[in-house]
Amino acid sequence: MRLAIAGLGLIGGSIARAIRAGRTAPAIESIAAWTPGGAGPAAALADGVIDRAAGSLAGLVEDADLVILAADPLTCLELLDELARLPVPDEPPTVTDVASAKRLIVERAERHGLNFVGGHPMAGLEVAGYPHARADLFAGRPWVLCPALLARPIDLERCELLVEGCGATRRWLDATEHDRAVAAISHLPLALSAALVEAIAAADDWPLAEALAAGGWSSATRLARGDVAMGAGIAATNAVELARRIRALGSELDGWLADLEATPDDPVATAARIATRLGAARLKLGALD
Amino acid sequence: MRLAIAGLGLIGGSIARAIRAGRTAPAIESIAAWTPGGAGPAAALADGVIDRAAGSLAGLVEDADLVILAADPLTCLELLDELARLPVPDEPPTVTDVASAKRLIVERAERHGLNFVGGHPMAGLEVAGYPHARADLFAGRPWVLCPALLARPIDLERCELLVEGCGATRRWLDATEHDRAVAAISHLPLALSAALVEAIAAADDWPLAEALAAGGWSSATRLARGDVAMGAGIAATNAVELARRIRALGSELDGWLADLEATPDDPVATAARIATRLGAARLKLGALD
Repeated sequence: MRLAIAGLGLIGGSIARAIRAGRTAPAIESIAAWTPGGAGPAAALADGVIDRAAGSLAGLVEDADLVILAADPLTCLELLDELARLPVPDEPPTVTDVASAKRLIVERAERHGLNFVGGHPMAGLEVAGYPHARADLFAGRPWVLCPALLARPIDLERCELLVEGCGATRRWLDATEHDRAVAAISHLPLALSAALVEAIAAADDWPLAEALAAGGWSSATRLARGDVAMGAGIAATNAVELARRIRALGSELDGWLADLEATPDDPVATAARIATRLGAARLKLGALD
Repeated sequence: MRLAIAGLGLIGGSIARAIRAGRTAPAIESIAAWTPGGAGPAAALADGVIDRAAGSLAGLVEDADLVILAADPLTCLELLDELARLPVPDEPPTVTDVASAKRLIVERAERHGLNFVGGHPMAGLEVAGYPHARADLFAGRPWVLCPALLARPIDLERCELLVEGCGATRRWLDATEHDRAVAAISHLPLALSAALVEAIAAADDWPLAEALAAGGWSSATRLARGDVAMGAGIAATNAVELARRIRALGSELDGWLADLEATPDDPVATAARIATRLGAARLKLGALD
């Protein structure tokens, strides 16, 4: 199987490193890579992590069996458009991606008639770029696969081999089901983290608040420190499900307001109501001692 | 100066350890401790960290120069009530506390005519109890002091000596000003973390979402894993300011909803709006590369 990776940052680079280092490597004949601008392919070629650095998307996918779009969601959409403009080979390659939202991307691939399986490895780091790529980034992590309409059995097999080669655990999911789940555990926390900063850091007493900030503030705002274009692309390609989750959270906050303000002169009664909320949350987290 | 610590968990125990280990220790004649139920004082006596384990609050404060209430906010309110019921000595001690909200506590102390300086060391750990107490817990951290109406110069001096002895940096603040700031950087993040769990973990697709959860979910829900009674007491004794911050956050989330839903068929335009939000948040965090 000949791999072609479009985008060789943290995720694409870690795929290349994992495949090269892995036990399934014999099944992989070669790894080619291309990025529109990044320095990843040249560095990876020098490292012996890939076999070929292509000069264009057309050059990359030529002779490829599995094309991996390892870019942010909006770039993945563009790359699908570009792939669709290339001449169709006799044996069209399998195309997959690694973006954090799947429905729009799967639909775009279907519109273009590509043999596509959407993918999402549930792993990442705070840092970006090929220099941070690690062979063990996906080890033991779930890797969601969402077959599009025109996915052939060979496409499913190739993607399974990819996931296995990266040491991850394959999970077949419907794209919408995937997007709902990641809106909950990944995209809503990102939006909340940024909204928290927007709400607090714009207030006129921010300098004092910042001076007092401790560990709680750091962990609550960690996600807001991530890459802006990546975060925006993720939210924009999962806008419907993210909005649904934001509304659900808003309902809970309305409940908090009611509980905080019901007995303004009785902090003990207020604490009892809030303890019920916090206790329920902790139970759900499975973190009760 | 004779210290008397009511409550000898993580914070009270760390105060005792810091004072005992510190350079200002010569100024501290003795350390006594008492808790209503915990095992801290006996353990600290065995460790040589305190000089006396008292059998009651009355026994604790007898002959004390500085009484430190090292308990959760609601317990601090109760301890103030109990202190007010004790006979007033010829030279009333200085009373301070370490709770995370100050206005209600300062007002209660004023109502009882105590010589009180509210205190809040901006430090903590995920764990509780005397066994986790560390002499360096407060090193280099801010320690807010909020003098009540009847605070005498000697009360301010004693509290400064305490803060200095713990290696922290003293910051005088009005109690309401303090409560506004910590509502922003500490209490709102806690409420958000719990509301996130409530909103997401109650949904019917929670098992799938949980299976896919990665680092982002862990950091977003870290605060919801803390002590329930402590969190409820904090929220209840700072309910007004916390509610104000929750409303400010709600306004930001309304803005997110508008931005996510304005151009449902144009993810590129949506991403541009969200990027503006994320970029502004990141600028405010001072985290731009």
